[in-house]
Order: sequence, then structure tokens, then C-alpha cells
Amino acid sequence: MQVVVIGANACGAKAACRVKRLNPKAEVILIDKDDLISYGACGIPYFVSGDIPHENALRETSFHVVRDEKFFRDAKGLTVLTKTLAEEIDSKRKTVKVRHLDTNKTEEIPYDKLVIATGSIPRTLNIPGIDLEGVYTLSNLHKAIEIKEKIARGEVEKPLVIGAGLIGLEMAEAFSDLWGLPVTLLEYFPQVLPRNLDPFTARMVEYHLREKGVKVVLNARIKEIVGKDGKVTGVKTEEDFYPADLVLVAVGVTPNSELAKKAGLLVSPLTGGIVVNERLQTSDPDIYAGGDCIEITHLITGKKVVMPMGSLANRQGRVIGTNICGGQATFKGTVGAFIMKCFDLAVGGVGLTLSQAKAEGFSASYALNNQTERSHFYPDAKYAYYALIFDKITTRVLGFQAVGPFTDGTLARIHAISSILPHKPLVEDLINLELAYSPPFNSALDPIHDTAHVADNIIHGLFEPMDWEEVLRRMKEGDPNSLIIDLRHPKEAEHNVKNFSNVKHILYQEFRYHVDEIPRDKDIILICNSSRRAYEVARILKAEGYERVYLPLGGISFPRRWGEPVK
Amino acid sequence: MQVVVIGANACGAKAACRVKRLNPKAEVILIDKDDLISYGACGIPYFVSGDIPHENALRETSFHVVRDEKFFRDAKGLTVLTKTLAEEIDSKRKTVKVRHLDTNKTEEIPYDKLVIATGSIPRTLNIPGIDLEGVYTLSNLHKAIEIKEKIARGEVEKPLVIGAGLIGLEMAEAFSDLWGLPVTLLEYFPQVLPRNLDPFTARMVEYHLREKGVKVVLNARIKEIVGKDGKVTGVKTEEDFYPADLVLVAVGVTPNSELAKKAGLLVSPLTGGIVVNERLQTSDPDIYAGGDCIEITHLITGKKVVMPMGSLANRQGRVIGTNICGGQATFKGTVGAFIMKCFDLAVGGVGLTLSQAKAEGFSASYALNNQTERSHFYPDAKYAYYALIFDKITTRVLGFQAVGPFTDGTLARIHAISSILPHKPLVEDLINLELAYSPPFNSALDPIHDTAHVADNIIHGLFEPMDWEEVLRRMKEGDPNSLIIDLRHPKEAEHNVKNFSNVKHILYQEFRYHVDEIPRDKDIILICNSSRRAYEVARILKAEGYERVYLPLGGISFPRRWGEPVK
Repeated sequence: MQVVVIGANACGAKAACRVKRLNPKAEVILIDKDDLISYGACGIPYFVSGDIPHENALRETSFHVVRDEKFFRDAKGLTVLTKTLAEEIDSKRKTVKVRHLDTNKTEEIPYDKLVIATGSIPRTLNIPGIDLEGVYTLSNLHKAIEIKEKIARGEVEKPLVIGAGLIGLEMAEAFSDLWGLPVTLLEYFPQVLPRNLDPFTARMVEYHLREKGVKVVLNARIKEIVGKDGKVTGVKTEEDFYPADLVLVAVGVTPNSELAKKAGLLVSPLTGGIVVNERLQTSDPDIYAGGDCIEITHLITGKKVVMPMGSLANRQGRVIGTNICGGQATFKGTVGAFIMKCFDLAVGGVGLTLSQAKAEGFSASYALNNQTERSHFYPDAKYAYYALIFDKITTRVLGFQAVGPFTDGTLARIHAISSILPHKPLVEDLINLELAYSPPFNSALDPIHDTAHVADNIIHGLFEPMDWEEVLRRMKEGDPNSLIIDLRHPKEAEHNVKNFSNVKHILYQEFRYHVDEIPRDKDIILICNSSRRAYEVARILKAEGYERVYLPLGGISFPRRWGEPVK
Repeated sequence: MQVVVIGANACGAKAACRVKRLNPKAEVILIDKDDLISYGACGIPYFVSGDIPHENALRETSFHVVRDEKFFRDAKGLTVLTKTLAEEIDSKRKTVKVRHLDTNKTEEIPYDKLVIATGSIPRTLNIPGIDLEGVYTLSNLHKAIEIKEKIARGEVEKPLVIGAGLIGLEMAEAFSDLWGLPVTLLEYFPQVLPRNLDPFTARMVEYHLREKGVKVVLNARIKEIVGKDGKVTGVKTEEDFYPADLVLVAVGVTPNSELAKKAGLLVSPLTGGIVVNERLQTSDPDIYAGGDCIEITHLITGKKVVMPMGSLANRQGRVIGTNICGGQATFKGTVGAFIMKCFDLAVGGVGLTLSQAKAEGFSASYALNNQTERSHFYPDAKYAYYALIFDKITTRVLGFQAVGPFTDGTLARIHAISSILPHKPLVEDLINLELAYSPPFNSALDPIHDTAHVADNIIHGLFEPMDWEEVLRRMKEGDPNSLIIDLRHPKEAEHNVKNFSNVKHILYQEFRYHVDEIPRDKDIILICNSSRRAYEVARILKAEGYERVYLPLGGISFPRRWGEPVK
């Protein structure tokens, strides 16, 4: 059996090696147009930042051998052709025409089974100046090396990143935190991480970026990249000009599916991804495809999506390897789990955001929660913030987001939810999750439980949530038809009582003795740190016949971490 | 509606407050024989250690108000009777007879719904000397205060812990790490954490305890606790004598179900736990029970067990509160998830151990894996160790164990597995889990994936595992019928080649050029750090017709972390 694999990174390298392990007698030819192959592309920001001193670290095995052609040949028994471009697939004759880029010679390589793992291509912007020197996309490791060397030579003083997605944020941190450079971050949408988070969590990330000195510009309408003598000098938006001597365009990627399309394989006009079945076969059953170049099923919506994630690509590579050797592995789809470090934060999410869920036609609602990651009595317990997206009618869980300190606590919650999400859990199922507990790690009820409790209480109509945006508006306007009661310690409430005319203080644990002071002709809005106390007081008022009682979700810790003028 | 709750800790306090939140007009009476109520019992070791300076921290809400009688009355609207012992339940007349311990007066309290949350009683030992001064069980917070004060007064120089379970280990650390006391730890079984781990993971914990100066004595057959002038001076086993001026007996707990039994409620003779249905009703539908005093279903075996965990008790309290108020909540059972800090380690597990699984009649097998928690190229990535227990015939996942650095990485993996385990996943389902990835948190394939891959490869007969015990025996005996090949860098292999006559070095990435040097008349045992390289080489040998090829699971990093004389 001769297997040809096009693309020698996550999916391709995995598929090639898996075939060779299952069938050591198979001939496996691994082709890549680049000379640097099988590197940890997700590690690039940490290489640029200097956390990882040399690019070879990204190319090494865990036992510190560089994964180059020789390694794949000697250790894995593969034939590796680098600097070799796959130009054409003839699926009738079962051959691939390749061009050796060094010699410009072409060659036809026959295959029994073919794997297309051509990855993705960074999106670019159709604006003047995009070709200026100093304007980059992170298309491969060479580009990263180039950027890092440029910084190391002291040639970068004003880096600017276009796009506040995962890679944009990681690269902004790489420039800012470790090289001490003042970074400008331009984002088209009105929030950072627009594909991954809702504003209630994204605003915390945005605030943290600003705390760390990143100049975050939202709603940026970029008109032009400006240069002098062919070199970039800045970026012009409709509103402003931002000087820059390095511009990184990080506005997403598109599937690199041209080769497949040319070969007559089915490629989705909607997503641009190669169409595959669950066994990751293309429309030609002898040709498999995996990684960033395919479309897969979103397990919440049932729709096809492209989800360019290294973890999925690796898993797909194994599935392909198994199936080529006669096994029966499948890849069912994705729930879109992500995790990232952003300076001192760990940020994660899975499933749909609230706005995505609404756009998909769900009766989507959300619950917020904040609590310490460890037991609140455990030393140095830090606050983390959680959001649960659910369907209010079916009570189905649709998504989950977490912003916490840079520990593995966020990972723990995302891992739990992403593991269960394909089973289509209801909010009740999250409440019933068994989650191990010990004070150095969490509370007796894990943050997942408590976040689900908030959702459960909303579903059962136990309280009426009000968006913080609305509460903040009423506070700032001093809305006389609202009475906002701060239930915390008087010292904690002091600032809000002093600064907002409609905020009054009543201590939570004395509230039941003050019920008759509460007017019935106003909207009563109850606030505390996490809305736990507010919830209990809302229940008391409801039992006393009060109708106009509202809770802002997640407590005042949320707008405080958005940088709003509340305390 | 009048609701009486007996027991004011995790389950009872939760149930009482939940009732009051759902139905603020309900009369709820919370009874406890103690004056200290609603404290975080799982935090006791961190209080004794001094990490938590004052016991009140364990009794406080997250907003720093002590949860005493006044708090429950004012904030929650409950009637709280402390120092009040529930002596008898008359389920026909629906009353509870209580004794006020301060006055010794009794009183009958009527109920519409009753909750029994009487918790558990520490097991003790039926041996001479158990009543000596200085011998403790951790039956309540008072005992913990007493122990801590004794240490603080400098009266403890030689603490000794009987029982190397979760609490025994946490208390050993509290004595040793923070007070600098030389702790002796006696355990009946041949390993630490015998109910929670298998030897392959337990031995790492044991080794770490020894590294930290804890004197661990396994297989201890305790005969007597010895004293002088009524005070403890040491513990005598069949083999030895261990001096001690404080002895903590931590040999587990039994359900405190006497009151329920006397009331004629169904109590299991097998587990000692109160029998409840999924709505947590006892055999009298107006009486609910939850927490350590009940038996619940083990979701892997289907059998009834007692599982005294604060997290379960809290969840059960909420279920009871919901149901008392007419809701439809259920508690289905447990998969036995746990997490603990042990000095610099985070140790966790879920499901059955290998030995438990075998005892239950499963065709149980196991896979081991070690890898860095973060991407191996990410700075300061530390090794963690994983074990997966599965049924070799049905491929069902039965259990999972993890020993890693003291981060939340272990929690992340236990959370994922415990979330999925009630769905009866197969090994293949773990391979297909979507687990978010970013280099500061994990590898593109999460440790769960790679551990499941090892299991999958065993299931498909891709290699033949051999227990490390057997490999170590052959190394130590220099078994001439075994050839053990160390595949690592020559420097890494040097120690083993020099010290064991049947260990030979061949570099992994050159192995395929040395196949004809490998004898066919010996057992070939392949070793490297994690058995990843060994697996690939085994596949090469198998393809060349070698039959007697074996891999020790998890690589040599396992016995190294057991303190075995290998490197």
C-alpha cells in the first residue's frame, strides 16, 4: 500500500505516522511545500514572545529531537519530501503531480490512498498598503522567525495588531508583555474575541488588555495601511491614524481547499472547506482530508463549519490513519472548545455565544456567576467569572464561557462542559454533574454547579434578571423610578450610595426587618458582589407580594471588571 | 408548612436554606447537637496546618459573615437550635423529640417534612489505648481546634496518623509541612490511598510523602496504643513501636443512621446507610435524608455504597429542598470522583480502581501515560501521570487516576472524566472527547486523549503490555531470557545499561537499522520515558515477525517516581 500525505503539520504528520504504526510495511510519502514541518503552530506566540527561545523547540519531540526530514525517515520510516508543492491530483489515475521547489522539476507520485491536509491560509485585507514591508500575516513559522528577528534587532517600536481574535490577542501579549512594546490592537467588531465570547466576558478581557497597556480600539474601520519608502508607518481608520512600524494582520483563516477543488472533490461553497464524511473521506473514498482545510459538523447547531484548531487536526489525523489501515474510526464534529492565556487571565469557552445562539433561532438566555476558584476560605483564592448560555424553553445547554486567573481552573470547567456538551445536556444535567471537590481546588459546589443553579432559577422564574447595561444606565441617569439596593457591607456600598442618587444601602442579613421600607411603586434592583445575596432578598420580596424586583446577573463584580465606575 | 432539618452542616444547611428560598413562608427549624454549625469540614486540614488562621474562616460566607445561629435566623429566616440532640422520630405523629443539651430538657417538635442529615461518625479501632489522652478522631471542628491548640502550645513533637486515606494524608501534610513536625503514617494496606488509587499511582504519592519527610509504614498491623500516665506515648504494631505524642485515627467513617433506624426507617444492613430513592426520600415519603448518612448508587457497578463527600452532600441538600417544595429533582448516584492536594502534588481519581474493577467481575485492564501538563515546549512544563481503567472486552471506561503537580491540571482531567462517566463511555469516546487546547495549558492531544490511545492500542492488540513489577524483577535478577532495550539518548540509558546486565541501548530513531541485531529467542522488552518510542519500535519488530515483544506501561518515568533504582 502506498499512502501519500499532502501537508506535514498537525493532521498530515499524525495521519502519516499513525498509518506507519498500524502498518509498518506501508509506503508512506509525506509532502510539504515548506522546509519547516511538523511544528507546534499554536506555540508561535510564545516563540515570538521569547518564552520559547528557539524555533526548534516548536519542532522537537518531547524527547528533544527535531522533527525534520531525517527524523521522519529514520524514526518513523516515512519518505518526506519538503519544499515540494502538490500541484494536481489525478483521482482517476490515482497520482499526485508535485513540483520540487528547489529544482522546479515536477514528478508524478502514485497513491493507493491519499490524504489532503493542506491547512488554512490567513485571511488578508483588501485595502491599500497591505503589501508594504512590515505588514505580516502568520502564515508559517518562517514569518514568525522574521518577526521575532525584527524585534530582536530593535527594529520594532510600535507594533500594531489587526484583529482581536485568539491569535491577535496572543500576539498582542507577545509584543507587549515580553518585549515591553506599546501595542495597538484594532478590531472591527465592538468587542474583543467576537467569535468566541459575549460582551459580558469579552469586556473583562478587554479591560485586562487595557490594564496591561494594550491600546484596544474597537469598531475600527480600517481604510488603509500607510507607508513611506515602501515600509509601513501606520494604519488609517475612518476616525483616526495609528502609527506602527510592524502590522500583524490576524483576521482569521480560510481553508486551503484549492487543490481539492481542482481535483474535482466536493468543496463547500458556503464554508470553503472540503466536504468529508465522518470517516473523513472526501467525495472520492480513496482520498481523505483533515485539519483546517475541511468542514465539520457543529454539534450544537448541526450545521457545517470550519474550525481551524490544532487539537481537532491532530485527532482527525489519527482517525484518517486508522481508517486508511482498515479501521473504523469516526470524527463526529465539534463543540468549538477553546482556551487561551491572555496576560494574567485564562479565558475559555465552548458551544455557542449568546448572540450566536439567538442567531441560530434558540430561545437563548444566559446566567452569570462569579466565585473564587478555590474555596473562599483557602489562601489566595482568586475570583473567576462564568457564563452559561441555555435555551429557556428546552433548558438545553448551548454554551459556556469562563474568565479566570491564569491557572488551569478555566481549563477544568471548559474540559468538563466540552466533554458533556455532545450529549446535549440540559441545565439540570449540569447541576447533577459530579465534580470532585477539595478546598485547594474549588468549592463544595463547583463553579459549574453554581452557574447552572443561576440558570435553573431563571428557568423556574425564581427571579427576574436584568442586564447590567440597563442597571448601569439607570444608575448613571439616576432614574427616579428605580430603587437600587446595595446589600453588602456598608463600607462596600459606600461608593455607590455616594455616587448614584438612586442607590440605597440595606444590609443583606438585616433585610427581612426592613421590608416595609421598600416602596411598591418603583423597580427594585438588588445588588451585591455575586447576586447570591440579592437572589435571597428577591425571594423575600416576592413572598411579600413585590412584583417589580430585578437582579442584575453575576453581581457587581462583573461591571467592576469591565472598568465601569461602580464599586 | 413546617420543615425540620436534623443536622446543620453541608446537606442539612443546604436543604434548609433551599426550602426557605423556594418558599420564604415555610417554617424551617434547623437542629444540631453541636454549637459550631455549617462549617467547611473539608477545610479542617488547612485550618490545622495554619493555612487558614482562624476556625471562623471555615464558618464564614464568601462575604465574611460567620454562619452562626443569628446569621441563619436573620439572613435566612430559619429557626436554629444548636446544642440540641434529636433523640427520637415519631413518624406516625410526625414529631421529633429533641434534648436541649445545655438544660437537658426535652421537647417535641412537629414537622410536615423532615430531613435527616446526621452525617457520619469516624471509625475507631478496637484496640487497647484508644481512649488515651492525645488520641483523636476528627469527629468535628472542636477536635480540630483542640489539636491545633495543642500543636500551637508546643505540646506535639511526634504526631502519628493511623490511616493513609484522603483525610489521613491531608492531616499528615498539615502536621509535617506547616508545623515542621516529623510525622509517622501507619496504613494497614500495602499502599497509601487504598480505596482511591492503584499501586501504580499510589506509589508515586507514597514516594512523594517520603520525599517530604513523612515516615510511611505500610502493612502496619496495629496491636496497641501505648501510654503513660493516661497520655499517649506511641503505637505498637506486630513488628515495631512508633513513639507518638499525638495520634490521629483516620480510618474512615460510618453513616450516622441510628436515629433513622430507631424510627423504623429502612437502613441498609450492608452499607449502614439510610435507604433513599432518587428523590432522596426515605422509606417514609415525608422524611428525606442526605449526606454522609445515606447510601447511594454507584453508577459504574450499580451497587449501593456510602460515599461521604462534602460535594455530594451539598448537591443532595439542594435536591431535598427542591423536592420538599414540590419540585422534581433527583440524585442519581456517584462515580466516586475525588481530588486532593498532597504536598506538591495534585492527586485525583474517579470510577473504579483496577483492583475494584476486577473484584466486580469486569475484564479490567489498564493503561498508563505520562506527559507534561503543558505543551512540552512551554516553559516550566511539569510531568503528570495518568492511569485509565477499562474493560478489555466491552472497552468500557471504568476509572481514571491522575497524579500531577499542584496545579488545577489534575482537576481538569478528573472533571472531564467524571462528567462523562455516567454516560458509560467506551475508550473510543474518550479519544473523541473535544478538549480545548493551547500550549500554556496542555498539548494538542490532551493527556486524556493520549492515555485513551494507549488503552485503544492495547484493546486492538497493537502491543503486549507487561507490568513494571515484572520488568523490574527481570532487571534486578538479570534474567538472561530477557533483553531489555533502552531506546533513549545514550546519556539517559547509561545508568540502566551499567547497572542491569540484561539492559542494552539502541537509539530509538536508529532502531530500524538495527533490527537484525535483535535476538528472536528472548523476550524483548522495550523501554523509554513514556513508552511512546517503545510502542513504535514494538510495531517495527512485530512487522518483522518478532512475537516476544513487551512494553512496560507508562515508560520508565513511572518506576522512577516510585523510587525504584532505575533512571
